[in-house]
Amino acid sequence: MAFKIGLLGLGTVGAGTAQILLDPQGRHPLLQEIEIYRVGVRSLDKPRPVELPKGLLTTDLETIVTDPHVDIVVEVMGGLEPARSLILKAIANGKHVVTANKAVISRYGDEIFTAANQAGVYVMLEAAVGGGIPVIQPLKQALSVNRIHSVTGIVNGTTNYILSRMQTEGGEFSDILADAQQLGYAEADPTADVDGLDAADKMAILASLAFGERIKLPEIYCEGISKVSAADIAYAEKLGFAIKLLAIAKQDLPTPEKGTPDTETRNFAFLQVRVHPTLVPKTHPLASISGVYNAILVEGEPIGQVMFYGRGAGSGPTASAVVSDILNIAAILKSGGDAAKLHPLLSCSHQDYCANRQGRRFAIAPMEELVTRFYARFLTLDRPGVIGKLGTSFGNHHVSLESVVQTGIHGELAEIVVVTHDVREGNFRQALDEIRTLDTIDSIPSILRVL
Amino acid sequence: MAFKIGLLGLGTVGAGTAQILLDPQGRHPLLQEIEIYRVGVRSLDKPRPVELPKGLLTTDLETIVTDPHVDIVVEVMGGLEPARSLILKAIANGKHVVTANKAVISRYGDEIFTAANQAGVYVMLEAAVGGGIPVIQPLKQALSVNRIHSVTGIVNGTTNYILSRMQTEGGEFSDILADAQQLGYAEADPTADVDGLDAADKMAILASLAFGERIKLPEIYCEGISKVSAADIAYAEKLGFAIKLLAIAKQDLPTPEKGTPDTETRNFAFLQVRVHPTLVPKTHPLASISGVYNAILVEGEPIGQVMFYGRGAGSGPTASAVVSDILNIAAILKSGGDAAKLHPLLSCSHQDYCANRQGRRFAIAPMEELVTRFYARFLTLDRPGVIGKLGTSFGNHHVSLESVVQTGIHGELAEIVVVTHDVREGNFRQALDEIRTLDTIDSIPSILRVL
Repeated sequence: MAFKIGLLGLGTVGAGTAQILLDPQGRHPLLQEIEIYRVGVRSLDKPRPVELPKGLLTTDLETIVTDPHVDIVVEVMGGLEPARSLILKAIANGKHVVTANKAVISRYGDEIFTAANQAGVYVMLEAAVGGGIPVIQPLKQALSVNRIHSVTGIVNGTTNYILSRMQTEGGEFSDILADAQQLGYAEADPTADVDGLDAADKMAILASLAFGERIKLPEIYCEGISKVSAADIAYAEKLGFAIKLLAIAKQDLPTPEKGTPDTETRNFAFLQVRVHPTLVPKTHPLASISGVYNAILVEGEPIGQVMFYGRGAGSGPTASAVVSDILNIAAILKSGGDAAKLHPLLSCSHQDYCANRQGRRFAIAPMEELVTRFYARFLTLDRPGVIGKLGTSFGNHHVSLESVVQTGIHGELAEIVVVTHDVREGNFRQALDEIRTLDTIDSIPSILRVL
Repeated sequence: MAFKIGLLGLGTVGAGTAQILLDPQGRHPLLQEIEIYRVGVRSLDKPRPVELPKGLLTTDLETIVTDPHVDIVVEVMGGLEPARSLILKAIANGKHVVTANKAVISRYGDEIFTAANQAGVYVMLEAAVGGGIPVIQPLKQALSVNRIHSVTGIVNGTTNYILSRMQTEGGEFSDILADAQQLGYAEADPTADVDGLDAADKMAILASLAFGERIKLPEIYCEGISKVSAADIAYAEKLGFAIKLLAIAKQDLPTPEKGTPDTETRNFAFLQVRVHPTLVPKTHPLASISGVYNAILVEGEPIGQVMFYGRGAGSGPTASAVVSDILNIAAILKSGGDAAKLHPLLSCSHQDYCANRQGRRFAIAPMEELVTRFYARFLTLDRPGVIGKLGTSFGNHHVSLESVVQTGIHGELAEIVVVTHDVREGNFRQALDEIRTLDTIDSIPSILRVL
């Protein structure tokens, strides 16, 4: 056995990882040279779905990341601490690291990758985004010859499951969430999923890789799905859209209006990075991604559109990604790579990009500068002239409308659904502020962006 | 400039490749260290979409593959010869090779990879399948930790374009083919595309990688789309299917009926490898892949389903794949890999698999042993009892039916469409032979498999 693994965590993903490594027949032959050497767990006696020799398990995780025999530390325990500290200590001890921990990487990626590059080790994270879907590696390797224009993903299975069921069953968010919790598709505390925070973690990682820039979590605009109603799903359907929680990173070329904050570097541009429920045209490849599946669509020059699709979570898919990272490191070590020269496609190269440019290539675009279509639903008094007043207010703020439909009557109130053409978000918000002051307007229950 | 490219061919893909390499700004920084050193062309004076210093071009391609300064030979000329000989000569001269040539690899892969492994060089072929879609590299790397069960692809853009238009417009094959030829979506001689030969080339490559086995082109069952009629597309649509030209490689576990030709190697199994028009359920991820797009769906344990989607041809996408291979080789060379030890995930490892097993792991399953659903369309005399006779004949051969629908009358003849449950293809064929002898049966215009 050539390569020794120190596994931190033996939960769902850890057990899945061990199962692959313990049963290498019929897989890549190099897996037969990888040995599970130590496994760090919280309790030695807990029953596990995988059988390991008792002597391998320890509750002292520090001894694993400092053990001179361990080549690769595999962090699949989750959570911020002690995961972050153990990863840093492993790096300091010259171990390569494989992690499935999106939260640690999205928050402490800079610290971790800087340490890894200094120590001459790899930190691999295929499992942190999109479960088993190979997307991190394509972004680092095959797609990196392109100028990336956008990365658009359905990267949270729980919310996609809820929205898909709302679409097929017509139910309300809260009912389907409760059912999803009972079925194990949503956590007891669903906040991270339904508020879009998990998707934002993943988009911080994808955008950083796609644009060669360290995108910080607070820079990502984030809006969850809890306000999406059965009515919106039904109207979207009629208009030819599915509602999806999208994570989007998109390059905005500078325009005279937006200004060019730094014209020295030729490619300087604005970057939009955002997570929000979105009306996706049914003809778009992401519209048909349903249930717990994830998909990531990358657009670039000259490749055009490519999309990666698969199960975004679960023991098997995530373990497949973890083991593929282990295999990648083992392959580099086996091919006799010089430890002083990290493989430039496997190591983190944000530093290289930044060194080449001496600074950031992108500024994060403020949301009011976003140019997009909008969907909005209004409850109004049922009087003649209401649509005219709405149209006038939108016109006052240069918001042009694609369609205005009175969709029904709720008691005293009429319901009107508006879809705009591409407009500046700031202008649209100003129009809504004006509309809220109209005495014929009761409320604006929904405002959603359209892809 | 660290790495010198000898480019063989400056057509669509060659020019696209040169365009990326000449304009590296905003792409992976390593591309700045790659230099186009020599370009082999048939005519020096032909106008090109890309401007290169005149001194780079030569019509003497041999001098490129033997030039001691050239590190990587990029073969994008197409055709069998002289491409094959030049690739072999490049390898013999210690050059790494990047090729987009599916025909050469599917026919001479064994010879080429054996030579490359002996010479200690890489032969990379991402561009040979699926245009820009990263699928070769994921199969060699990320997915190789899985036991692959099946690879199912829409890998020919021309036929998918024709079938998609037949579906949306209701036209006949020959009319839409003629139009596609005028628009440049189909070749003047469309045989390789419409007869499924191009898809078979690509499936030979995908199946070889996915199953660690050298699949030979004549082992692939191949049926084109020229017999698919507007009527079949319309009936399929009504039944909830889209008709797609699928390339399928699928592992069949041994069963007592099929026998186990070699029980010594635990994983021995049958492999189906086939290309044919197929009814795909509309809910299946491949059903919505339309126009010139390609998609490859891989199923394995424990990853489940993953799918890769993008433009399957064209200058930009294909050049993206070519340059990603160049980048991969440059990265390995830069990280100081020992020339005596090839990177096990980038080199061809079929030899390793075979050495481990001392022989083939799969036997190619004969088509009569295939178990699948069928769709068949019959023209019959318009008499009572015809459906009963059809049903009896199918029953005689253990073919159970999912649906039988009389769909219309054509002059004197009634049209009946049958969809079977999963049946053994041999049994289904025997039933059809019996049905052809019935005096109430006029003809069987269509027989298609169902996914």
